[in-house]
Amino acid sequence: MRRPTLTLLAASLLLATGLASAADTVIPDAAVKTAEQLRDKALDDGTAMTVLTSLTTEVGPRLAGSDADQRARDWAVAKFKALGFDKVYTEPATYPLWVRRHESGAIVAPFPQHLVLTALGYSPGTPKGGLTAQVVSFDSLDALKAADPATIKGKIVYVGARMQRHQDGHDYGIGSAMRVAGPVIASKKGAAGYLLRSAGTDAHERIAHTGVTGFTNAAEGIPAAALSNPDADQLERELGYGKPVTVKLDLDCGIVGEYTGANVIGEITGRKHPDQVVAIGGHLDSWDPGTGAIDDGAGIAISMAAAKLIHDLPRRPDRTIRVIAFANEEMGLWGARAYADKHAKEVSKFLLGTDSDLGAGKVYRMNASVAPSARHAIEQIADVLKPLGVAYDAKRPGGGGSDLGSMHAKGMAALTLDQDATHYFDWHHTPNDTLDKVDPKELAQNVAAYAAWTYMAAQADGDFGSAPGAFASDGAEE
Amino acid sequence: MRRPTLTLLAASLLLATGLASAADTVIPDAAVKTAEQLRDKALDDGTAMTVLTSLTTEVGPRLAGSDADQRARDWAVAKFKALGFDKVYTEPATYPLWVRRHESGAIVAPFPQHLVLTALGYSPGTPKGGLTAQVVSFDSLDALKAADPATIKGKIVYVGARMQRHQDGHDYGIGSAMRVAGPVIASKKGAAGYLLRSAGTDAHERIAHTGVTGFTNAAEGIPAAALSNPDADQLERELGYGKPVTVKLDLDCGIVGEYTGANVIGEITGRKHPDQVVAIGGHLDSWDPGTGAIDDGAGIAISMAAAKLIHDLPRRPDRTIRVIAFANEEMGLWGARAYADKHAKEVSKFLLGTDSDLGAGKVYRMNASVAPSARHAIEQIADVLKPLGVAYDAKRPGGGGSDLGSMHAKGMAALTLDQDATHYFDWHHTPNDTLDKVDPKELAQNVAAYAAWTYMAAQADGDFGSAPGAFASDGAEE
Repeated sequence: MRRPTLTLLAASLLLATGLASAADTVIPDAAVKTAEQLRDKALDDGTAMTVLTSLTTEVGPRLAGSDADQRARDWAVAKFKALGFDKVYTEPATYPLWVRRHESGAIVAPFPQHLVLTALGYSPGTPKGGLTAQVVSFDSLDALKAADPATIKGKIVYVGARMQRHQDGHDYGIGSAMRVAGPVIASKKGAAGYLLRSAGTDAHERIAHTGVTGFTNAAEGIPAAALSNPDADQLERELGYGKPVTVKLDLDCGIVGEYTGANVIGEITGRKHPDQVVAIGGHLDSWDPGTGAIDDGAGIAISMAAAKLIHDLPRRPDRTIRVIAFANEEMGLWGARAYADKHAKEVSKFLLGTDSDLGAGKVYRMNASVAPSARHAIEQIADVLKPLGVAYDAKRPGGGGSDLGSMHAKGMAALTLDQDATHYFDWHHTPNDTLDKVDPKELAQNVAAYAAWTYMAAQADGDFGSAPGAFASDGAEE
Repeated sequence: MRRPTLTLLAASLLLATGLASAADTVIPDAAVKTAEQLRDKALDDGTAMTVLTSLTTEVGPRLAGSDADQRARDWAVAKFKALGFDKVYTEPATYPLWVRRHESGAIVAPFPQHLVLTALGYSPGTPKGGLTAQVVSFDSLDALKAADPATIKGKIVYVGARMQRHQDGHDYGIGSAMRVAGPVIASKKGAAGYLLRSAGTDAHERIAHTGVTGFTNAAEGIPAAALSNPDADQLERELGYGKPVTVKLDLDCGIVGEYTGANVIGEITGRKHPDQVVAIGGHLDSWDPGTGAIDDGAGIAISMAAAKLIHDLPRRPDRTIRVIAFANEEMGLWGARAYADKHAKEVSKFLLGTDSDLGAGKVYRMNASVAPSARHAIEQIADVLKPLGVAYDAKRPGGGGSDLGSMHAKGMAALTLDQDATHYFDWHHTPNDTLDKVDPKELAQNVAAYAAWTYMAAQADGDFGSAPGAFASDGAEE
């Protein structure tokens, strides 16, 4: 899941001219025509679904640092090679190793009830025998922030704000803050543990949504878990009786050391400018309860399949298409940050980029953060994507996605291809993130969009404005 | 969940006359008017939702024979008393005690995958360390029936038929047969274990549907469990690779003895004929993963609330309204059978009855198995229920529900009030059987129907034909 990019560019940067001036970047007519063919071919191409089926079936869940992490990297290397990529390699990424062994919980009093919950990333475990404490409840993160620590000390904090479904998934702003910042705030106020209503829009599923907390060191960690929505309802009903409510948490999880994984990279080598790259991708890791189909097997499949269509053209594109399967996005963009640190000095060589990490729903909107001289070329891309139902919003910046956002922060020109996320947060970070949630036609529409824009960028006469620190003004800060 | 009554009555029994003859049972005008008032009042009455909230919150899951079984009975006695019922008592029911301690499973090869599954009722546990065996797959129960035992011996049988949503829930015929008969057939053919695609219509939920098997003694039992629909998809995908697929089941469950629970009964005592009863109810036990809101807290709540509305009238009805909260329906109608055995000789005193056990969706159809002389009275009831959206189908028999079906089999005249079960099998026998699935307005519509017909039956001039063995011809056999 990527971070929303909320800052709007100054309108002056975004006003595009209808006709290109001599200084403008332009996509040649032949490239536009080929991109249209790629787009149309992609809609009938099953490669992405085949890749996604392979990943979710043959590897399945791939929690960063787990046994499946290595299996996923082996799978990615083999898949890139099988698809015919010209160059396949890995680059290491090191991060704290967090493991989940067991998790359970229950309301102890006034009425015993089993709780469906899941431990959150970087949560420490509870003491042997579990943690039993009274619950203190808040209906929002703001209420927790405002609370007197004396009311919290030694208790299990519960925060119960709800998320609603939206096409752009913006209520994840509520849910992710409750999950990332909430445990840290509770810990600082002396809480013994932390529970939240799952950051999910599935109001009626007895399935909890995991995800990372903001704990940055073991010292500040307290046991933290998410309740399924119906279990949060049940807890709130018990709280409604006006008697003390006691919960027992039994979590066996925590940081057990450090792990070195890797980003896995496949390239279609550029014919004219092999050192100039158009960057796409997704993240290879997933949370463990599901099989990581929508988060983010889809992004891996979309980008591999888009590059494969370009690979299958009669000749290589002018520039290199680089597909990056990032390591450990879920617990803090570790692969992305390692990548951006390693390649910061080459940022001008990254012509344009974005990864895909909001599921497998149709792309409905494209935004860009590029130099003014590249706006005409972006409009050319938008024209090719328009028949796919993709609107171009010239007033919004492109963030580059969750992982390539780190390169955008270094100065890479970036797109955002917004996917329809209406149901994404029903399944996100849960056991329900499985292949059956993916509509092959919608997945193919994504591939069509990625194949078309990637190819057009690779063939552009001119660049998109990538340079060190070029996009700091649109909020793309490190 | 009740058994569908599929046998149609001979049409000749069902043709009702528009006008009552002298020998016909008739509901007096005053009773019709009061029933209409009860119906309308019920639509704005929150008692059923309050009762259901209390049961699911204060007791929660109540697997027959578990600690919660006693708590549920205590709850029912207290609730009947609090609602002002004139008489509250229990009658024992004894049954095998089956317990569930732990369940897990995984595909071991060719690609390791965790499986979301749940053990089935009366399943024995696996040996210590689990049962690991190759899977042999069938796409229907018929295919399993036709299979050569040599292909099954020592393997884990998997049956993968799917259920679709229907208003009358008729695909449960597929699912329940696969769950009840399937394990027995597999066991007889020498299988080491049994797996089915959950008998549920939630094609995309990583939640398994439990339920009873047809094992009647420990000797024939083999470990048996249900996979969630997406896990069944995953297993089928692995089978599709054409390599041997091995599964490990680890079930700690089984029959550990015998238990004596009880049916809990509350009565509004009849003013004129206290010994003549109109019988309604539901079952108090539930499966353990959910909180038994739709199965069958709803039936308990509907029948308690309907009787309570009659209780609140200025004077008691002519006959007794008996609400029966049956014991252990889920593992074989144990409470119902104990009840019918005990009361078989009094069957003529049971004027008319049915319990509610298909969730909390709106009643959309009423059917009856009554004497021809009572058809006019049934039409009078149908007229009062019509504004609720309840159609009267004179060609279908009334089965009396899952539990009171046992009294119908003894000769009790019976109704069936069919509920809209479109989504019932999404949640049935799963952790998702929770209060949030119940629409208070739809629940109240059920109460309106039950209050109206129950009162009308209690005030009828004449009977409905109850007599020993009276309805054997409509399939109501013991």
